[in-house]
Amino acid sequence: MSGIERPAPPSPLSPSARLLLGPGPSDVHPRVLAALGLPLLGHMDPEFIALMDETQNLLRYVFQTENRLTLAVSGTGSAGMEAVVVNLIEPGDSMLVCVNGVFGSRMVDVAERAGAKVTVIERPYGEVFDPEEVRAAVKRVGPKVVGIVHAETSTGAWQPVEEIARIAHEAGAFIAIDAVTSLGGVPVKIDEWGIDAVYSGTQKCLSCPPGLSPVSFSPRAAELIANRKTKVQSWYLDMSMIQKYWGSDRVYHHTAPISMNFAFREALALVVEEGLEARHARHALNANALKAGLAAMGIGLVTVAGHQLPQLTCAQIPDGIDDMAVRRRLLNDWGIEVGGGLGSLKGKAWRIGLMGHNSRQANVTLLLAALETCLRDLGSALAPGAGLAAASEIYRQAQKSTSN
Amino acid sequence: MSGIERPAPPSPLSPSARLLLGPGPSDVHPRVLAALGLPLLGHMDPEFIALMDETQNLLRYVFQTENRLTLAVSGTGSAGMEAVVVNLIEPGDSMLVCVNGVFGSRMVDVAERAGAKVTVIERPYGEVFDPEEVRAAVKRVGPKVVGIVHAETSTGAWQPVEEIARIAHEAGAFIAIDAVTSLGGVPVKIDEWGIDAVYSGTQKCLSCPPGLSPVSFSPRAAELIANRKTKVQSWYLDMSMIQKYWGSDRVYHHTAPISMNFAFREALALVVEEGLEARHARHALNANALKAGLAAMGIGLVTVAGHQLPQLTCAQIPDGIDDMAVRRRLLNDWGIEVGGGLGSLKGKAWRIGLMGHNSRQANVTLLLAALETCLRDLGSALAPGAGLAAASEIYRQAQKSTSN
Repeated sequence: MSGIERPAPPSPLSPSARLLLGPGPSDVHPRVLAALGLPLLGHMDPEFIALMDETQNLLRYVFQTENRLTLAVSGTGSAGMEAVVVNLIEPGDSMLVCVNGVFGSRMVDVAERAGAKVTVIERPYGEVFDPEEVRAAVKRVGPKVVGIVHAETSTGAWQPVEEIARIAHEAGAFIAIDAVTSLGGVPVKIDEWGIDAVYSGTQKCLSCPPGLSPVSFSPRAAELIANRKTKVQSWYLDMSMIQKYWGSDRVYHHTAPISMNFAFREALALVVEEGLEARHARHALNANALKAGLAAMGIGLVTVAGHQLPQLTCAQIPDGIDDMAVRRRLLNDWGIEVGGGLGSLKGKAWRIGLMGHNSRQANVTLLLAALETCLRDLGSALAPGAGLAAASEIYRQAQKSTSN
Repeated sequence: MSGIERPAPPSPLSPSARLLLGPGPSDVHPRVLAALGLPLLGHMDPEFIALMDETQNLLRYVFQTENRLTLAVSGTGSAGMEAVVVNLIEPGDSMLVCVNGVFGSRMVDVAERAGAKVTVIERPYGEVFDPEEVRAAVKRVGPKVVGIVHAETSTGAWQPVEEIARIAHEAGAFIAIDAVTSLGGVPVKIDEWGIDAVYSGTQKCLSCPPGLSPVSFSPRAAELIANRKTKVQSWYLDMSMIQKYWGSDRVYHHTAPISMNFAFREALALVVEEGLEARHARHALNANALKAGLAAMGIGLVTVAGHQLPQLTCAQIPDGIDDMAVRRRLLNDWGIEVGGGLGSLKGKAWRIGLMGHNSRQANVTLLLAALETCLRDLGSALAPGAGLAAASEIYRQAQKSTSN
């Protein structure tokens, strides 16, 4: 046989400039890009081993935890979700999953594939759970694990989890949370809240490319994993083996994604340099300006008041406005990516991310200006500059309160 | 509570210069590093979608296949192994695994976790399987899937698989191969050989960082996956969902590791520019020079003659020489990483990789010179320059035969 013929070499890689204001990935900080482009070390090199230790130490601060079992899984956030579920769950175990968006539903699917008997409680997209309804379900089901999404990337809903963790513990259950979109944008206090297992992603408020999933397990969860009766169904995500590579044994498991770990360490270093409080305050300020601007333009939000994530604003598309026409124009004319709606919100919502490095006044201003231009051109009766003026007022007030 | 205190920011990331001549990762080509450091596109951006199409097209050439289901799994090579196994196997299915090294053993573990009834046939480390012994086992077991490692990274053994694929097909079984270390270094002819499923890694002969696993499934394997009775146990690795993102549907599954996909496309472009035949010839020539040099220094090989991978030479550590003393010196004095033995070869073998971009005369020369210096200093009675002279003679002959 002659085989498959050699194709023409592709043209040089030259992606257009983008401003990633969707639900993630967000733009990567230049220092993180530089770290990504460094020549490699081997995955058993003493310098790489030292880097892993440093990374764990930085990550413990970002997760606000002393958990020994704190590391980066070698896959994206969904791999982290799967790692948490398959390590805690053995076939036949009961799991209660709280679903108010796409990522809660995904957790149900992952848990069922792990052999869990899953009970679901639901809230409409854009709402959050009241601890009392979780308490009632926990009482009814007696689950081994309660799973809930801290920051629902499909709706922008910000779920308080501290009280729910208490409820789970009082019933002897473990609590696992999805912090993919929350980490680095709003407080995630693993130890103070008593969270047993958490997974996140690198490509949201940490301003690192997608490819790793930071996870952390409480000592109680680590003990559960150590005492399993069955092997974890995923070899790749088996924490009992992975922790021997990240721990003092340094037993080879799989080849770590070296470059992504370089980038991740740099991204964590940036969070440490800024400090969590300052970082959260920055996210809050820019979100307030964006929301004020949208409100002044007559654009409502999907998410209930009081539970809107600052890093991800889920805006209702105004009546009569074509979702794709606006998003295509934003992308083509300004290079701005904004996310569309997922699941039941498809065509009805825009998901606007101001995450990590991207949470900046310049980005808020450009987005509002571009959106106003788009909507005006599409025939919407906007007061010119109303959005920009409202956002600007938020920054003026913030400056005044800082200088006082 | 006061929370976890902010640690001191770490010092700037500044890895020492390394020449990665172990079993992988290998050094990344500068053009691939540059691609890695490019600003991101979103994972649903039309330009990224186009890049995925291009990547699949380039990858089909490298795998020598027309398989539609050819793409990069978002994890390292071991995730690719798991993806192949969990998609082909349903609980209770029979799988025959041929084990002659660490990665064959890993496949057994992965298959058992997927619920397969696994039958193992074994060969000592450094040897390969004879098709007839596989035929006997296939006859005895009647497996649904036969799994075998094409290039055993733990021993440097190069397993012929074409005849074994025929044997599997004659018995109505599927054949899955591990091509983590082979792809880009020696021929991997998926269609001509009739391979049903293959996984590889990016960090070996493709000179790209670790983090993705190229896979390909034959139409027959794709049909098997489409007609499964049970869901794939891994949500993250479920090819029936992943192919909807890579295929024309473009349904969001998980956020692709954007930067790694940039790098992978560039790495594949480099293979296409060089051409597979030239690339394989380059690997063969440099391996021949290395082996001639080692032989002249009195260093034998672990792998049986006739089945030694050119990209990975598994050398026996001479009697009385301390493994770690040599490897530490190579790393500290010359920045050269060479791999140690795995499993039963621990302390007994060095694994020397000349993979992808690293398969060059300069690297062969430097390694032999450094190794000679180390061994002489450790009291070995080497003829000075014997290794270098033997290697040099190989290059001289090659040059002569080219100019004729």
